[in-house]
Amino acid sequence: MISPEKHNRMANAIRFLAMDAVEKANSGHPGLPLGAADVATVLFGRYLKFDPKNPLWPDRDRFVLSAGHGSMLLYALLYLTGYEDMTIEDIKSFRQLGAKTAGHPEYGHASGIETTTGPLGQGIANAVGMAIAERKLSEEFGSELQSHYTYALVGDGCLMEGISQEAIALAGHLKLNKLIVFWDDNKITIDGAVSLSDSTDQIARLKSANWNTIEIDGHNPDEIAAAIEAAHKSDKPTFIAAKTIIGFGAPNKQGTHKVHGSPLGAEEIAAARKSLNWEAEAFVVPADVLDAWRLVGLRATKVRKEWEERLNQADAEKRAEFNRRFAGDLPGSFDTTIDAFKQKIAANNPTVATRKASEDALEVINGLLPETLGGSADLTPSNNTKTSQMKSITPTDFSGRYMHWGIREHATAAAMNGIALHGGLIPYSGGFLIFSDYCRPSVRLAALMGIRVVHVWTHDSIGVGEDGPTHQPVEHFAALRAIPNLLLFRPADETETAECWQIALKEKHRPSGLALTRQNLIPARTEYEEKNLSAYGAYELISASDAKVSIFASGSEVEIAIKAQQQLAAKGISTRVVSVPCFELFFEQDADYQEAIIGNAPVKIGVEAGIRQGWDAIIGSTGAFIGMKSFGASGPAKDLYKHFGITAEAVVAAAEAKLA
Amino acid sequence: MISPEKHNRMANAIRFLAMDAVEKANSGHPGLPLGAADVATVLFGRYLKFDPKNPLWPDRDRFVLSAGHGSMLLYALLYLTGYEDMTIEDIKSFRQLGAKTAGHPEYGHASGIETTTGPLGQGIANAVGMAIAERKLSEEFGSELQSHYTYALVGDGCLMEGISQEAIALAGHLKLNKLIVFWDDNKITIDGAVSLSDSTDQIARLKSANWNTIEIDGHNPDEIAAAIEAAHKSDKPTFIAAKTIIGFGAPNKQGTHKVHGSPLGAEEIAAARKSLNWEAEAFVVPADVLDAWRLVGLRATKVRKEWEERLNQADAEKRAEFNRRFAGDLPGSFDTTIDAFKQKIAANNPTVATRKASEDALEVINGLLPETLGGSADLTPSNNTKTSQMKSITPTDFSGRYMHWGIREHATAAAMNGIALHGGLIPYSGGFLIFSDYCRPSVRLAALMGIRVVHVWTHDSIGVGEDGPTHQPVEHFAALRAIPNLLLFRPADETETAECWQIALKEKHRPSGLALTRQNLIPARTEYEEKNLSAYGAYELISASDAKVSIFASGSEVEIAIKAQQQLAAKGISTRVVSVPCFELFFEQDADYQEAIIGNAPVKIGVEAGIRQGWDAIIGSTGAFIGMKSFGASGPAKDLYKHFGITAEAVVAAAEAKLA
Repeated sequence: MISPEKHNRMANAIRFLAMDAVEKANSGHPGLPLGAADVATVLFGRYLKFDPKNPLWPDRDRFVLSAGHGSMLLYALLYLTGYEDMTIEDIKSFRQLGAKTAGHPEYGHASGIETTTGPLGQGIANAVGMAIAERKLSEEFGSELQSHYTYALVGDGCLMEGISQEAIALAGHLKLNKLIVFWDDNKITIDGAVSLSDSTDQIARLKSANWNTIEIDGHNPDEIAAAIEAAHKSDKPTFIAAKTIIGFGAPNKQGTHKVHGSPLGAEEIAAARKSLNWEAEAFVVPADVLDAWRLVGLRATKVRKEWEERLNQADAEKRAEFNRRFAGDLPGSFDTTIDAFKQKIAANNPTVATRKASEDALEVINGLLPETLGGSADLTPSNNTKTSQMKSITPTDFSGRYMHWGIREHATAAAMNGIALHGGLIPYSGGFLIFSDYCRPSVRLAALMGIRVVHVWTHDSIGVGEDGPTHQPVEHFAALRAIPNLLLFRPADETETAECWQIALKEKHRPSGLALTRQNLIPARTEYEEKNLSAYGAYELISASDAKVSIFASGSEVEIAIKAQQQLAAKGISTRVVSVPCFELFFEQDADYQEAIIGNAPVKIGVEAGIRQGWDAIIGSTGAFIGMKSFGASGPAKDLYKHFGITAEAVVAAAEAKLA
Repeated sequence: MISPEKHNRMANAIRFLAMDAVEKANSGHPGLPLGAADVATVLFGRYLKFDPKNPLWPDRDRFVLSAGHGSMLLYALLYLTGYEDMTIEDIKSFRQLGAKTAGHPEYGHASGIETTTGPLGQGIANAVGMAIAERKLSEEFGSELQSHYTYALVGDGCLMEGISQEAIALAGHLKLNKLIVFWDDNKITIDGAVSLSDSTDQIARLKSANWNTIEIDGHNPDEIAAAIEAAHKSDKPTFIAAKTIIGFGAPNKQGTHKVHGSPLGAEEIAAARKSLNWEAEAFVVPADVLDAWRLVGLRATKVRKEWEERLNQADAEKRAEFNRRFAGDLPGSFDTTIDAFKQKIAANNPTVATRKASEDALEVINGLLPETLGGSADLTPSNNTKTSQMKSITPTDFSGRYMHWGIREHATAAAMNGIALHGGLIPYSGGFLIFSDYCRPSVRLAALMGIRVVHVWTHDSIGVGEDGPTHQPVEHFAALRAIPNLLLFRPADETETAECWQIALKEKHRPSGLALTRQNLIPARTEYEEKNLSAYGAYELISASDAKVSIFASGSEVEIAIKAQQQLAAKGISTRVVSVPCFELFFEQDADYQEAIIGNAPVKIGVEAGIRQGWDAIIGSTGAFIGMKSFGASGPAKDLYKHFGITAEAVVAAAEAKLA
């Protein structure tokens, strides 16, 4: 048992590391670490199941600092509990270039950072995803291998952001009772008092979403402990409203927005040392306190060993599967299975929408990969994401593999990030491409973290037709290609769709998005080709000797390019066609390949039912581009293509004009 | 009084217009118009204050169809009540290219469409903005000129989207008691039953956000009327949960997701005709019913005339101001005031961050324009958006002009859209540029609608420094430039910032975003120039005869360009510098101007602390680009600029390499 006095000293160790690190960096957020130190001390000190020596232990409890600006809270905890890759030097280099201790916690920088947070509300939705993953894997592998809690610490900002409502409603609906969220209820935001902008009764709000709620004094260790224990017994997710004083311990500034995001200053820190009776110098943790924390880091060693024993005693096949799943490796037969599927496609050459092609590919993939967790943000019949293997997950039955995420694109994407971060599952989900805007912040974080999440974005252009410009992506290819480390695929037919799915699933460290059509497409590829040509990003679909024109196109416009090629060839104008399913992969090819594919035909034409931005890298700034220059319009898709001049005839005319 | 029988016939007129139009288009959403026809009939029939002959009457009640897929409900109402620009032919051409009756309601297509909806949750947040505008203008001009309700009709999708929580919390906080939201509670979404994905107690949720809540049978006219009358007496916003049957009247399909988004089919429509005892043919409204509806359209004529009388009797100055404000015109002295400010800047040439320059400009602007409504999504001290004239708006006092929007970027942007759509005010608000991702769907809709909303996006690059990659925009310039009809400004100093503000405010039909720095910048312009040079989008800052190198830069990188120019000139390499504060405006200049500005120096270099995408249009695909290729990092800004190679030295090296 930890005495009150010892508790205080342990919590104060967090506080002074945070104050001192922020002060040294002359930048950062002391308010949260000081205010939430007591909650963190009780949680880490007595309950959190974690082993700093085995930070990736699959059954560890997950802790998400959703209020990521309080990063020093997490760094201090990692250092104190003995994570080997978090040293006092790392703490001292807080917020410096190249340091693990970035301004906001960054996944991959150091062990124990479960996710990248900072953009508010993302963390709580990540945590919902982690809790979904735990429940699903527990169902699949048994509670002897998966049975852990997911904790998150949120601030007022997280709760105000809309994404939190989506995540909260989802967690309550699914009865994720192993999800425990602490609210650092300090009544302060950057502008001042929370009451400047909000009067929500958060307890009532959470109750309305089927959460268990508990209100405590966030500085009282006994209340914190009792709340966690009550949460452990709940059949619903638990929201613990912990009333805290922001910047607790900074005697002259605490409780005000002045401590939120600025160093306290030497004088105030000195006053805090006096007030909290803290004798140690900056960055020095007294031996008794450090020892106590290091013991905390050893608390779960036995439990972890018992877990390993259970894994070792498991059926060999189950053990191998569990390990494979957490390693994120695909089954050895993955490529051959896709190849066989490609052969089957080449035998049929179906004219299908790529959303349907994606369903066909998923039918094969889901048959092979038990780790895929499918879903849709309430567009299942449109996104074609539910295959024959996929039973719906319900609040009382997680044996299914399909999530009805609801009309919640943002939390869906963030929860998918959480699922991927958790390990053991590969999440994919559907939505309309236009609504990639709704979840863009989470897509960006997936790219920043480098995690495998696959977005199935259907209805990818004016091909949407009658739903009109509110539902027709125009700038979205460009906007998504702009995000570093995200692969945006736009396959042209069933074969390319299968190839793009193959790549997306093999990319362990990058998220992908598949932009897919609503409308049917004539196949671009008709012969089986063993190589995954889409993996080159762009490749020659129709070659021509001494080509005068090169047409580059993606997705639904490849059939326009092919038709234009035929018309130009009929006029004696030698023309080649390049399919461009993925810009990012193309620009990762070596220079020779890129040059060969771009070629040296005097006329280069890009065709895509989106804006030109980005295409100049392929067609040059002097190339012709057949695409969109404005928002779309409501009308039948065929009328729109004609209206906006995205036709084979327009391509031919552009070629002839350039050649003239 | 409308008898129950007459009510039914009036509601059925909506239903059959919707069924028949969707059927003829072979596309669309009959479910909502059929289900919500009773609510709409009571609201429009008895309460809504509107005058189809004067659709822009400033004191009309606003009606927002947040569930925009039910567009036929609105089109039917507009036709039935006698809006002259909504004919039966328009109804018949539902969802056809060029028709006013687009798949989703589009602002500007026809009178009475108060906003563009379809992307779910946007409409309710627009309505919150409209209610804010009403309350503010009522405070300013008196209830004799501004005293109307704002009604919205939302579906389950709107309520699941996170943006709705932001909007709901805000409306409850501000006690917007003239906001009345109907929830079309039909328990159906596209995937099936709402219970597949949600179990939220919406009544409890709304109560937790300080709303008045009422539950009714949405097919019972008396209950609907009683709810509206109760709402009118509330001191809080009112949420009316109207239990409805989706597709009401389609006897075999109603109450299922099959009626949501597909035509009912001839057979089912015939069955509905029988079941609802509707004798008229498709697109024919029986004379008695049409007469009844046309009378509804005349109901408020007297009230509107009385209002006009009050306006005419108002003090001449007040009347002129009111009319000016609703015309959206700026005071005649606007340009001269900005010019005077520019002269003052040229006299001081301050080294300031552009966020501070923006504050300085706003200090001048807000002093002149009483119609600006400022704010920030809880980053007031960082965004520098609150000037000396601006007192905070509070739930009990709307005499201020500054909104503490809370940590709610999405609802902020959508509510700003609502404010702009309402008329009488020009909304601007601050946020970090990185969080433009959080509100991107609303920004896009502002661009699609063509409305004047100004986003003050500070902390616009790796210049953010220590907060790291989660807070450093990299792809955001490109991603925002990708949105058609949005002006993205990135001014380089205090003068350009003033000019960009001048343009943004004069653009009545386009939204703008100002990307502003956290860090101080050396002035790029030091001489007063009467012309607004930023209005050209790009202009020559430093000319050079027979230039070998042209450097193009925006914002904080202009000072790097200038420094590089000096170094190159010192080496005898003739170099010019072009400042590019706004891509969109530059590409609207005539070809001669564009050619002259791009020039024909053999080496063209772009410098911007973002990705290259989009720059090829200026520097060509063979130009050099000094910018970002990846996410940023946490560290002091100066270290980051060096680390990522965005320096004058790098520009010089690139120039020399190209010249070699």
